[in-house]
Amino acid sequence: MSDTFCTAWDQLRAHLHTTQLLGGIHSTLYFDQNTAMPSAAAGWRGEQLALLAQQLHERQTNPAYQDLLAAAEHALPAQAPAEQRHNLHLLKRELARQSRLEPALVGAIAQAQAEGYSRWQEAKQRNDFGLFAPSLQRLIELRLEQAQQLAPVEIQADGRARSAWEILAQPFEPDISKQQLTALLLPLRELLPPLLERARSLPSGSSEAWDLSEAQQESLCTDLLLNWGYNQERCQRALSPHPFSCTLGPDDFRITTRVVEGQPFSAFLATAHEWGHSLYEQGLPRSGEHWFPWPLGEATSMAVHESQSLFYENRLGRSQALARRWHPRFTAALGRDVWGSPQAFWRDLNPIRAGLTRVEADEVSYGLHVLLRYELELALVEGGMPVAELPEAWNRGMQELLGVKPANDAQGCLQDVHWSEGLFGYFPSYALGHLISAQLSDTLEQELGTIESLLEAGRDAELGQWLQTRVYPLGRSVNAAELVEHVSGQPLSPEPFGRYLRQKLERLEG
Amino acid sequence: MSDTFCTAWDQLRAHLHTTQLLGGIHSTLYFDQNTAMPSAAAGWRGEQLALLAQQLHERQTNPAYQDLLAAAEHALPAQAPAEQRHNLHLLKRELARQSRLEPALVGAIAQAQAEGYSRWQEAKQRNDFGLFAPSLQRLIELRLEQAQQLAPVEIQADGRARSAWEILAQPFEPDISKQQLTALLLPLRELLPPLLERARSLPSGSSEAWDLSEAQQESLCTDLLLNWGYNQERCQRALSPHPFSCTLGPDDFRITTRVVEGQPFSAFLATAHEWGHSLYEQGLPRSGEHWFPWPLGEATSMAVHESQSLFYENRLGRSQALARRWHPRFTAALGRDVWGSPQAFWRDLNPIRAGLTRVEADEVSYGLHVLLRYELELALVEGGMPVAELPEAWNRGMQELLGVKPANDAQGCLQDVHWSEGLFGYFPSYALGHLISAQLSDTLEQELGTIESLLEAGRDAELGQWLQTRVYPLGRSVNAAELVEHVSGQPLSPEPFGRYLRQKLERLEG
Repeated sequence: MSDTFCTAWDQLRAHLHTTQLLGGIHSTLYFDQNTAMPSAAAGWRGEQLALLAQQLHERQTNPAYQDLLAAAEHALPAQAPAEQRHNLHLLKRELARQSRLEPALVGAIAQAQAEGYSRWQEAKQRNDFGLFAPSLQRLIELRLEQAQQLAPVEIQADGRARSAWEILAQPFEPDISKQQLTALLLPLRELLPPLLERARSLPSGSSEAWDLSEAQQESLCTDLLLNWGYNQERCQRALSPHPFSCTLGPDDFRITTRVVEGQPFSAFLATAHEWGHSLYEQGLPRSGEHWFPWPLGEATSMAVHESQSLFYENRLGRSQALARRWHPRFTAALGRDVWGSPQAFWRDLNPIRAGLTRVEADEVSYGLHVLLRYELELALVEGGMPVAELPEAWNRGMQELLGVKPANDAQGCLQDVHWSEGLFGYFPSYALGHLISAQLSDTLEQELGTIESLLEAGRDAELGQWLQTRVYPLGRSVNAAELVEHVSGQPLSPEPFGRYLRQKLERLEG
Repeated sequence: MSDTFCTAWDQLRAHLHTTQLLGGIHSTLYFDQNTAMPSAAAGWRGEQLALLAQQLHERQTNPAYQDLLAAAEHALPAQAPAEQRHNLHLLKRELARQSRLEPALVGAIAQAQAEGYSRWQEAKQRNDFGLFAPSLQRLIELRLEQAQQLAPVEIQADGRARSAWEILAQPFEPDISKQQLTALLLPLRELLPPLLERARSLPSGSSEAWDLSEAQQESLCTDLLLNWGYNQERCQRALSPHPFSCTLGPDDFRITTRVVEGQPFSAFLATAHEWGHSLYEQGLPRSGEHWFPWPLGEATSMAVHESQSLFYENRLGRSQALARRWHPRFTAALGRDVWGSPQAFWRDLNPIRAGLTRVEADEVSYGLHVLLRYELELALVEGGMPVAELPEAWNRGMQELLGVKPANDAQGCLQDVHWSEGLFGYFPSYALGHLISAQLSDTLEQELGTIESLLEAGRDAELGQWLQTRVYPLGRSVNAAELVEHVSGQPLSPEPFGRYLRQKLERLEG
């Protein structure tokens, strides 16, 4: 390579490195806000996040950065690796987006997010949707303004313009369209309700109600993580109102969980889930000279992210083999065996029944929770549905899709954190994650043998290794659909997911 | 006031407000680093802190800010309140300091602090001073460079130049000099050893060794704080290797503690101590139109800060009245009474004996720990003592002053966090805090009655109210010596402290 190219490339890398430092500071403030910050500090924190968001936006759009990009592109030799061209392409695309956004809007959104989060917490606690409604209204208006500003650069490959909702979904799920979602998610409307109906006749798990203390749950979660390679020198854990995983730096990963009274598997499975997210982040190509701090070293989409967390939560955490392993430990913690057999313990880990809460939902009903949110988002963002109608529309949808009705809005439309920060376009990725997890698991089982047999033999590490070799290193070189096709050799489809659920139901019945 | 003045004043206020936002972000990263961050992230966090330190330095020195200051001063009307003139004076003085510091040095210090902290943690854990020595050497060199750059603006009122150590001490203790310290601290060399000798014949407290679990200590600390007006909407707590208190924003206060095996009063008293710091910060004039975000709304010195934490730790937490109140609760937590009487419990709360660790030291020996550090700092910073000689010099000093010798460097010169971040000039403030606390307590008792009688009557809130009215609102309008003279009517002196210790010993003997 020529000296010119090296210089331009190095300067661009240095700029991106500092941008990542600032992004990591932003993530630290977010982590602190959710795990340690006193509530009265919400306004001040909002100002801080807005300040950083403006700084980040400025760094990602200023003329000096544009010059660095242009210089790197100009100096790129003909024989440059495809990865470098791809990095430049992704950077230019992001620049085109950021350049369209007015700094005032970026600041206003950050401020509205912090306020919205704080109001949502209060509204949920007091079960008063009216406290949150004005914030939601404001966030919808700001997001529509954002979609409008971005529209000119959000054109699909076939030249068709994207809708407002599709534009907002792009950062989470690159290249996603409502048409694709219809093909992938609509079959779930047919597939899931009969399975849910069939599950009503499953035998129950435990013979009596049981619960564990916070300290006991903490201890079981620690054991689970240590079994899966948890290294507290790179990852730390905390409690937060809503479990999450986040990356604060190349060697700084955090996962959080919460202890829910009366739901003693909640923290355990949430820990498996967030650990799956964190392993994906920890396995991304971020070392050496190749990809960090370049875009190809980033996670490619939220659906792929979710497929990795669901793999650890459902394929491993809720497996029959792990139930056999954990039944004695839960019995020891509880001081008595309320299940009587590993099979009954496994059934308790896999209750399949329509419920009110997405994050506590089973694998069958989960997709229906997502369908409801997806349809409500389309109504709010594109269909002109007034915010005031959300609680009723939510309750109606729950009745139609799942046959249950929330007793109040805290259990209903206030249950999720996402809308409190104006994250529209995010929910479908959760359902796509189930589909992707199932399809990748099929390939894994074809190559290594069944997951159950591997876990039974204590070969957990091989499962992790397969993902670390086949999935994590792909970074952003492919989008979600391409990743699935690359690994499995087949286009993404809801078939493997349907097959997996039917087989699981059969085993639960047996 | 004229429109011109209002505009200049408002613009200056807006600039300072944003600077405070960035400062609060810096504090958040520091809090996270000490309470939640995984160890592998130390390097990345160091880069982030360096980036923020450079941003802060730039904001505090750039031409735009200088113009804002000049415009505000130019527009200041003749009848402007003295507070506004004082704020401008403090801002100009700080600008003169910051302008002298080269940005590269500011960044290098921040980086060296993060590295030093990380190395110190490892060195302390492994009991290997050699691991930390190069970082300490580097920090001394950088601090000397800092003192040299600042020397031209660090001239005393009498025209005398300040020494390197005095210059480094200014940010912690404005206007302090080695001459003052000699007058205030040297008497402790005469005063304390005889008291320490006398204390050897005190009856012991508990009849057997005892300890409490982390959860039990946590519960007692929570009770203590709730009794003293702890409000978790404005303040949150965490665990860290070294207890501290910090302010992250106008309504965001944090205190930390640690649980030390075999020292079940450690967390309890550290909580009282850090809460005293936090109450001072929470009581500073930071609301309304007057002082926030102006310098007069800040804490005036570390010695005054320490006097407030020591008041809560020693005058309240170690009082006879509170011992009577807490004896039943500790007995309940422990499941048995290892003291037999409130008086014996009180003696257990007040062990007076020469020990190895400053932060666990009693009120009598504490000053000797500080004298050692003060003398070693002068030797390291001004006397040319090689870093390699520190462990031996430390051990020799401990023997001379306290008659004890550390078994290793982890218990010795590696015990404190301060030097790991190059904080030279800080330790004397701890000893001054004892003197100030004693002198302010004398005034309080003259006005309200004895602290013991007030606590006995459950009038804790009145004690807090007195500090909130007489001390906290002074902010930076006075330095430490002026504050004491303002409140007590007398110049700061070691006399009240000596009197207090002698009286306490008498009561412990009785």
